[in-house]
Amino acid sequence: MDDTVKYLLSEDKLPTHWYNVVADLPSPPPPPLHPATHEPVGPEALAPLFPMALIAQEVTSERYVEIPEAVRDVYRLWRPSPLYRARRLEKALDTPAHIYYKYEGVSPAGSHKPNTAVPQAYYNAQEGVTKLTTETGAGQWGSALSFACSLFGIECEVWQVRASYDQKPYRRMMMETFGASVHPSPSDLTASGRAVLAEHPDSPGSLGIAISEAVEMAAADPAVRYALGSVLNHVLLHQTVIGQEALAQMEMAGETPDVIVGCTGGGSNFGGLVFPFLREKLAGRMNPVIRAVEPASCPSLTKGRYAYDFGDTAGLTPLLKMHTLGHEFVPDPIHAGGLRYHGMSPLISHIYELGLIEAVAKPQSECFAAGVRFARAEGIIPAPEPTHALAAAIEEALACKQTGETKVILTALCGHGQLDLPSYGRYLAGDLVDHQLSDEAVAAAMANLPVTS
Amino acid sequence: MDDTVKYLLSEDKLPTHWYNVVADLPSPPPPPLHPATHEPVGPEALAPLFPMALIAQEVTSERYVEIPEAVRDVYRLWRPSPLYRARRLEKALDTPAHIYYKYEGVSPAGSHKPNTAVPQAYYNAQEGVTKLTTETGAGQWGSALSFACSLFGIECEVWQVRASYDQKPYRRMMMETFGASVHPSPSDLTASGRAVLAEHPDSPGSLGIAISEAVEMAAADPAVRYALGSVLNHVLLHQTVIGQEALAQMEMAGETPDVIVGCTGGGSNFGGLVFPFLREKLAGRMNPVIRAVEPASCPSLTKGRYAYDFGDTAGLTPLLKMHTLGHEFVPDPIHAGGLRYHGMSPLISHIYELGLIEAVAKPQSECFAAGVRFARAEGIIPAPEPTHALAAAIEEALACKQTGETKVILTALCGHGQLDLPSYGRYLAGDLVDHQLSDEAVAAAMANLPVTS
Repeated sequence: MDDTVKYLLSEDKLPTHWYNVVADLPSPPPPPLHPATHEPVGPEALAPLFPMALIAQEVTSERYVEIPEAVRDVYRLWRPSPLYRARRLEKALDTPAHIYYKYEGVSPAGSHKPNTAVPQAYYNAQEGVTKLTTETGAGQWGSALSFACSLFGIECEVWQVRASYDQKPYRRMMMETFGASVHPSPSDLTASGRAVLAEHPDSPGSLGIAISEAVEMAAADPAVRYALGSVLNHVLLHQTVIGQEALAQMEMAGETPDVIVGCTGGGSNFGGLVFPFLREKLAGRMNPVIRAVEPASCPSLTKGRYAYDFGDTAGLTPLLKMHTLGHEFVPDPIHAGGLRYHGMSPLISHIYELGLIEAVAKPQSECFAAGVRFARAEGIIPAPEPTHALAAAIEEALACKQTGETKVILTALCGHGQLDLPSYGRYLAGDLVDHQLSDEAVAAAMANLPVTS
Repeated sequence: MDDTVKYLLSEDKLPTHWYNVVADLPSPPPPPLHPATHEPVGPEALAPLFPMALIAQEVTSERYVEIPEAVRDVYRLWRPSPLYRARRLEKALDTPAHIYYKYEGVSPAGSHKPNTAVPQAYYNAQEGVTKLTTETGAGQWGSALSFACSLFGIECEVWQVRASYDQKPYRRMMMETFGASVHPSPSDLTASGRAVLAEHPDSPGSLGIAISEAVEMAAADPAVRYALGSVLNHVLLHQTVIGQEALAQMEMAGETPDVIVGCTGGGSNFGGLVFPFLREKLAGRMNPVIRAVEPASCPSLTKGRYAYDFGDTAGLTPLLKMHTLGHEFVPDPIHAGGLRYHGMSPLISHIYELGLIEAVAKPQSECFAAGVRFARAEGIIPAPEPTHALAAAIEEALACKQTGETKVILTALCGHGQLDLPSYGRYLAGDLVDHQLSDEAVAAAMANLPVTS
């Protein structure tokens, strides 16, 4: 019997191109709009924030974009990443289902985020940018960009959501070890931060506020640009190395997925895994159910409105058409599981509207229970984010136990949870309660959506 | 040009046997002695603490011991581990040397410790043991054993050095996530702990005290046994999977090491990497310099006495002939780098006395500087322990830059430092000073060595 656990690709199987799903969709996603004129924005509107190479990738309709050799050289520090068959979890669940997970926790920052941090740092360095600014919540994205900037010799300045900066110092220390400077957000270094502090001196911050601060600082200095860790087309493009490798690894395993589940915050991990499989589905070569899993306390796809909204709290970014809970939305503080962004990637939102994917929301107690179950069977403690996908995978596997079906389930374990152990501690101590966002709260959060038509 | 970074072995290349270096040494190491009679102890003296299968491995003179299939099945969750060529570090150092590192941080607990935790849990479960007790300092070993026990369905009870229990809660939460129960040591659950607390109510604890507590609890209950994470022959035996894989991977790379450096605390990571290469050296098939690197503040090999001493503070264990700083030794609290045990594995001590290996001591500032340099080049933040080996590897590589030699340097990166970031934070803030143990302090610490002849 074949009892392989890990499917490994050698370095020469590292993808040579990123895959752009837009080329294969029946229609392109709606364009970003200028916040004042409500006209589609051209590249020049994005130039103060991003280098031209990334702007070109943001709007390209080419099916494949070549990965620069210098980026592949860095990818090889941890890529191709392993695909695992979760044989011990299957046994613990007593399910006939086959569960596979693509593991991105082997990267230097411990998540999938370096897949895009590295090319973003590279293209900026190529165009003479000397510093990148960014925001981070718990710190996964900030540590990925800090790592990438250290390799290409550019500075990295991070605004970290104040609550995480105070409560989760390990990620900040990781960023500093990679050479970055880190500020709590809101800070008094920006007009956006000062405006928030004037009204709420004790503000715990939010991703939207931190984005405003990082964007403001980048726009003010021609040698500085801004980097975003999810949501945008070019970010999801870079993440497709995950799905391309997984496709080759599923072939090694001799199986085709019946169900693919991934967690969604801004959508980059989900898109990265799913898009290459969606290409196969659209071409009729396989027919998996594809399901996004989001937190019940920040349910942009399942409860948000599909509308134009700002990417940040202060309203500095172009308007993006996306499933949104409103740019002023802040998740309940009890929510421990990451995935806290108010909106969803416009590309994922568009694909959802096209009916090509499903979405569900999960309460955090079910997610952490899945995380503990997974850790005790497979040894890896998952980051809180992918426990959402694991909860959905376990649900599917247990359904197979009822029906006797041998479904093939594929999921993305997009990061390990070794720096998120305090959330596990709270869960094990019984201190985590569930928070389901009510319809009233959703309606209130969306009262300030910009009116675009 | 071959520019491979990672040398990966497929699962079918996982070693089938552990390698016992004792079979190839010119003389065997001196036996453990009974603390009262000073006669060599027989298996029966160890039976209250360890299962018979491990006692047999402790005293075997067979060259190879077969790895049970159930253990190999668990190893395959992360083994074979990767061997890396540190090309970016070489470039940063501008050295002609080739630097290779065997990376054990890919294991569930993030270090090499599960290599022995898994077989220890397995053999205990086979012999009907229902609970294992152990000690842990910062928590690497405790989390490895917690993981292993969760897989074989036995309980795990850990005494963690009080200072780490209070200051480094992440490792405790990891142990609890794997299902273990964790007590700060000294505790009032044991006579050993109560004796310490009576004299020093605020004692920060030590590894020696925690060992006494775990041993005492195991000896008192026939269904409970004790597990040790380093020092003993069977522990080092289990770790030889590291060196056997590294030997095959160096062959893939087409190179033979000129210098092998590894950090030493109790000696298990060092022995695990080095013994298979020592076999080759003793057989005349290669001739590497082999060097142990220890902290200047806990320098058992370079400043300790080669004498019989207890393995624990309370004097409950048999007497082991080893390089020791005295069983009452406690390293200076400023020391942040792990490797805090008062003694050295009797097997490593014996090999050192035979002149087959060298030893050096490094101050912590040089080690953390090496760790930061490594992280910014290679992306992996090393645990404080292997930064000692990295400091020695960098020293060797910089010497090559002077002489123009293309030496091949091999080292073991035995764990990642993501849960040790506060120590990096202190280093980056300039708060870590060096502490060199004086000859007077060494002499004082050894005043209470047991007299055995």
